[in-house]
Amino acid sequence: MSHSTAKVGFYQFAPEFGAVSTNLSNVIAALDQVDADIIVLPELAFTGYYFQDRDELATLAEEPATSTTVSALIQLCRDNNFHLVTGFAEKTEEGIFNSALLINGEGILQTYRKLHLFNTESEYFDPGNKPLQTCEINGIKVGLMLCYDWAFPEVARTLALQGADLICHPSNLVLPWCQQAMLTRCMENGVFAITANRIGSDIRPRGTLNFTGQSQIAAPKGVQLHRASATTEALFTTTINLSQARDKKVTPLSDLLRDRRPEFYTCLTNK
Amino acid sequence: MSHSTAKVGFYQFAPEFGAVSTNLSNVIAALDQVDADIIVLPELAFTGYYFQDRDELATLAEEPATSTTVSALIQLCRDNNFHLVTGFAEKTEEGIFNSALLINGEGILQTYRKLHLFNTESEYFDPGNKPLQTCEINGIKVGLMLCYDWAFPEVARTLALQGADLICHPSNLVLPWCQQAMLTRCMENGVFAITANRIGSDIRPRGTLNFTGQSQIAAPKGVQLHRASATTEALFTTTINLSQARDKKVTPLSDLLRDRRPEFYTCLTNK
Repeated sequence: MSHSTAKVGFYQFAPEFGAVSTNLSNVIAALDQVDADIIVLPELAFTGYYFQDRDELATLAEEPATSTTVSALIQLCRDNNFHLVTGFAEKTEEGIFNSALLINGEGILQTYRKLHLFNTESEYFDPGNKPLQTCEINGIKVGLMLCYDWAFPEVARTLALQGADLICHPSNLVLPWCQQAMLTRCMENGVFAITANRIGSDIRPRGTLNFTGQSQIAAPKGVQLHRASATTEALFTTTINLSQARDKKVTPLSDLLRDRRPEFYTCLTNK
Repeated sequence: MSHSTAKVGFYQFAPEFGAVSTNLSNVIAALDQVDADIIVLPELAFTGYYFQDRDELATLAEEPATSTTVSALIQLCRDNNFHLVTGFAEKTEEGIFNSALLINGEGILQTYRKLHLFNTESEYFDPGNKPLQTCEINGIKVGLMLCYDWAFPEVARTLALQGADLICHPSNLVLPWCQQAMLTRCMENGVFAITANRIGSDIRPRGTLNFTGQSQIAAPKGVQLHRASATTEALFTTTINLSQARDKKVTPLSDLLRDRRPEFYTCLTNK
């Protein structure tokens, strides 16, 4: 991986609710032999999304350190020399989190626990309890966020202020606004973003959720590099030029991060 | 003006550089007899935009308390029983600011001094030195921002956290991204926004700037209610339902402001 370009992508598919090993086999079959630096999978890519309650979640969530899913993904990364970002139902001593894992062939490099739980998620997930942070892989600063975090400009901004070049954004979207908002996130922060959404439905006793696909790769200046279909499986990769994310200027004298006036933003951190 | 609806609009036109009294006459002629609660004018609507230097700005800027432009606008508001928001080159003892004034028939209700100066503006304007705030007029909470402030999600967010129903946004846009970003601002904050942009060009010794029109009124959920042409003068008003700005829910359990996690946003206020 060079320091100025990276081959990045997503795998959009329809996880089957509760069928962790089936979903894992599907991901391995789809991604084995893929040439990329970073591939992003959807939120909760192995368990499915629409849990009945915390008990059901607890039976499907895994502890990363002992998870056979994670160890298989590490092996997949090692075999293909790429990084994976995936949504993951993370069981820990601190609680059960809707998490994103950044994995390579060595292990888990970073865990992000979703800060903004959506709708019924707060019935069964614990809210994220760790600060947003970035992780440098081969010279690329990667930030993680999950699904509904798109609605909170504070998330992408915090990652950008920490130097993120690329935001990896596993999602299970049911609302229509995210993809357009992520173009604004990329514009206002001068970053790349990969939104990996799922397709299909979770048809559960409590109701049916239909996910909206249209996974997207967006570039600084709000450029939509690719948007997948709303309904069909899609594996997509493209090469991005990271230098675009390191120049925050929109005119010779105007810089998106340097022009900020943080002394006037104190309202944003009031509880 | 009822507390649940308001008739709001903008006047998009081409100020002539340096011709303050001509521009004022034009605005008065266009807005006299207009039926509205709030009308928004472009940034620097009376002086024009592209100053050579601080000396030139100083000759065109006015002290609000003694400004004949402001007193004529107050009279215009009084005659027609509306509020005006206008860009204004504001000369004070503290400096010369690129400001927005909220005016009614009684006088100036609020002054906002642009926090994020764009490109060459910082050569001749002083940066805004007052906190963002909202102003309640007949039950409507109004927030002010100016042009390039669109690129900083912290601005609209701060106004929304202070209860803004409607953001009035005088602009002199030369970049292509604002209108789309303002749809995202309205979505993420659940507010209305009126972006009043100018048309035409400032052809000056230092160069020519072409302004992009397309003044816009946007609603919560990111709905574009109206967008004007890029090149023609336009006076537009519409009725908005303010209750839409007071319900921040995107699902029964998800609320755009209540779901925030400010303890994780501390990075945003670091200097």
